[in-house]
Amino acid sequence: MQEKLRAYADLVIQLGLRIEKDEHLVIRASLESKDFVLMLTESAYEAGAASVRVDWRCQELSKLHLKHQSDEELAKVDAHLLAREMESINACHKYLSIVGNDPNALSDVDPSKIAITRKASGTAYKEFSSKMMANETSWCVIGAATPSWAHALYPELPVDEAVQKLWDLIFFTMRLNEADPKAAWTQHTEALKRHSAWLNAQGFKTLHYKSAKGTDLHLGLADHYHFLGADEKNRSGQSFIANMPTEEVFSMPHAQRVDGIVYNTRPLNLSGTLVDDFYLRFEEGRVVDFKAGVGHDALAKLLDTDEGARRLGEVALVPYHSPISLTGALFLETLFDENASCHVALGEAYPSTTEDGENLDEETLKARGMNHSLIHVDFMIGDETLEIDGEKEDGTLVPVFRNGDFVID
Amino acid sequence: MQEKLRAYADLVIQLGLRIEKDEHLVIRASLESKDFVLMLTESAYEAGAASVRVDWRCQELSKLHLKHQSDEELAKVDAHLLAREMESINACHKYLSIVGNDPNALSDVDPSKIAITRKASGTAYKEFSSKMMANETSWCVIGAATPSWAHALYPELPVDEAVQKLWDLIFFTMRLNEADPKAAWTQHTEALKRHSAWLNAQGFKTLHYKSAKGTDLHLGLADHYHFLGADEKNRSGQSFIANMPTEEVFSMPHAQRVDGIVYNTRPLNLSGTLVDDFYLRFEEGRVVDFKAGVGHDALAKLLDTDEGARRLGEVALVPYHSPISLTGALFLETLFDENASCHVALGEAYPSTTEDGENLDEETLKARGMNHSLIHVDFMIGDETLEIDGEKEDGTLVPVFRNGDFVID
Repeated sequence: MQEKLRAYADLVIQLGLRIEKDEHLVIRASLESKDFVLMLTESAYEAGAASVRVDWRCQELSKLHLKHQSDEELAKVDAHLLAREMESINACHKYLSIVGNDPNALSDVDPSKIAITRKASGTAYKEFSSKMMANETSWCVIGAATPSWAHALYPELPVDEAVQKLWDLIFFTMRLNEADPKAAWTQHTEALKRHSAWLNAQGFKTLHYKSAKGTDLHLGLADHYHFLGADEKNRSGQSFIANMPTEEVFSMPHAQRVDGIVYNTRPLNLSGTLVDDFYLRFEEGRVVDFKAGVGHDALAKLLDTDEGARRLGEVALVPYHSPISLTGALFLETLFDENASCHVALGEAYPSTTEDGENLDEETLKARGMNHSLIHVDFMIGDETLEIDGEKEDGTLVPVFRNGDFVID
Repeated sequence: MQEKLRAYADLVIQLGLRIEKDEHLVIRASLESKDFVLMLTESAYEAGAASVRVDWRCQELSKLHLKHQSDEELAKVDAHLLAREMESINACHKYLSIVGNDPNALSDVDPSKIAITRKASGTAYKEFSSKMMANETSWCVIGAATPSWAHALYPELPVDEAVQKLWDLIFFTMRLNEADPKAAWTQHTEALKRHSAWLNAQGFKTLHYKSAKGTDLHLGLADHYHFLGADEKNRSGQSFIANMPTEEVFSMPHAQRVDGIVYNTRPLNLSGTLVDDFYLRFEEGRVVDFKAGVGHDALAKLLDTDEGARRLGEVALVPYHSPISLTGALFLETLFDENASCHVALGEAYPSTTEDGENLDEETLKARGMNHSLIHVDFMIGDETLEIDGEKEDGTLVPVFRNGDFVID
């Protein structure tokens, strides 16, 4: 177990973030992930890191703040921490975020309290997030099994067993059971690059989604849309993998050109509140109607964050028959669940998903169809019945997905 | 157990720090103390706190930094965190520090690396520490049983049992086994006030220490010395208890008037390195000779921190027959061990231990004999053979301690 964890840590440090001599690393992690954080730290130092800073998160503590603090207090953002983060990202410190919390932890917290903190930190950290999303530096999001997360997934098991079961699933999705995980990752990222290259070569204007559940969506792509997969580059040209695991190729929808209805296929965990059985109906890019069987209020609050929260910022294609999907497991954690299924995201778009987007000004990006928002929230829309056609400028339809999978290899 | 922990948390919040409506609290604690920190946080919010900020510490992470970072990197101090701390103390946010680490954790770390970080942070936080020691705000240091600390004390026990045993000791020393712990504390602090009032009334110039171990020390007191015990007041006049547990009355030695030799009676835990079997020989207030059977290098490094590190900043009287001492336990943690025994501290003095000291300028304080240093390190010199006489201006000797205990009630 310790060996496998250390292999996981090394994979993230050496291939995900490619930590080099004298670089600085920031790790954001739950207190529950302490042991794994220590391994990652050791791995980073052995790779030559000059410093590793760890920002500890504690969900139970956050919950106490949400329960007891006044709205005014909750809306405060620590200016010193913000200044430190800006300094770090401007100096290209690399960022590693470790997810893995109790997905239901905040279900009994007033959603308006959560909305206050989300909006306050979203506003304060706007520049920081924009730089991160524009790949100013290398960043990576990974998962770690924690007692609270594992217990939420497998309440019937003793906690130790639940944690072990979740680690095993994570190891599987991280290809750590392969003889040579690094080689397996290289092969995998090559396949994702092939898929994005094919999509970029087609010159689609719109993607048509249809599924048995009722999804019937015309999703317009941004002008000069650009599909990316796995391997990204930061400002200095260093490669990194922003999500591990990752099974997606993703691009930019046009903020004004989405019409039709889309149904979710997996639950969405919104800061600890589950949202499920929902649809969104779009007109000219905007959500004009929605309903959630579970967590309707939380979804409503999310959509009300700002104007851009009602429009799409990401479209991602994931084969139904891919490792995470094949586990059949529901992780209740976006990093994993989104990589089990085709998905879209409400909110802020990634500049890198339009050609040369990191070097364009805001106006040009907006004209191409880029969406802006304080939020970026993925939700899953793929299943084994999903069919996607790409529509070219001249109206030609090209099959992209059939029965939930790519038509190309 | 949960009830007792909650009673402990309430005692600290309500009596130690006296958190009131709309006040802000900062908690500094090890990751290992998470559950107790959550209780303290809840207790603080229920007492009306506007916010609770927790700064998490991780000894294992600090050790990795010490092992791998360059001297240059170790000497860096985060300016943003420092600015935040200055803002907090200037706004009179109350501070709670929770101790409880593996006392041996840093024994295999190069002491010069530890000295670098201690000096860097000591220098950067000089103003902050001075304000804290001058009681600008209320502050309190308490202990919490952690697996690493408990295991270090009772390596022969299963960790769970060791932790429980340590909690039981802490509960005993915190008077939480009394029917009414708050009443017991009030009675106890009254006794400490009686002792300090008696000492302040004597007008001693020097304390003469003698013990079977060989201690023979003439410890000159600062001009207008002032003994304090348990109950202190912050700038706004609010009462607080700086150390819980506390059994001491303490005052200010004169930085230039200490002569003779003093032997330690309990080991000193210096940032994770144990120092034991040592003596210090003073001439005109300065350590001119020393030797430690255990941890000599660490002691040498400590004394070399700055000029003031070789002089005394605190003298404290603790009866040999007091609760912590009676447990017979060695905690390897200064908060507890110092309250089992008479002790002195190398380094910075507390302005409050000379009359009206918080309101005097540096020059006047220095003229009275106040010592300055980046460090403040207590070590234990009391045992059941200790005799102390107080010498008045006219040479009269008055018995203060006999057989390790106060001669007065």
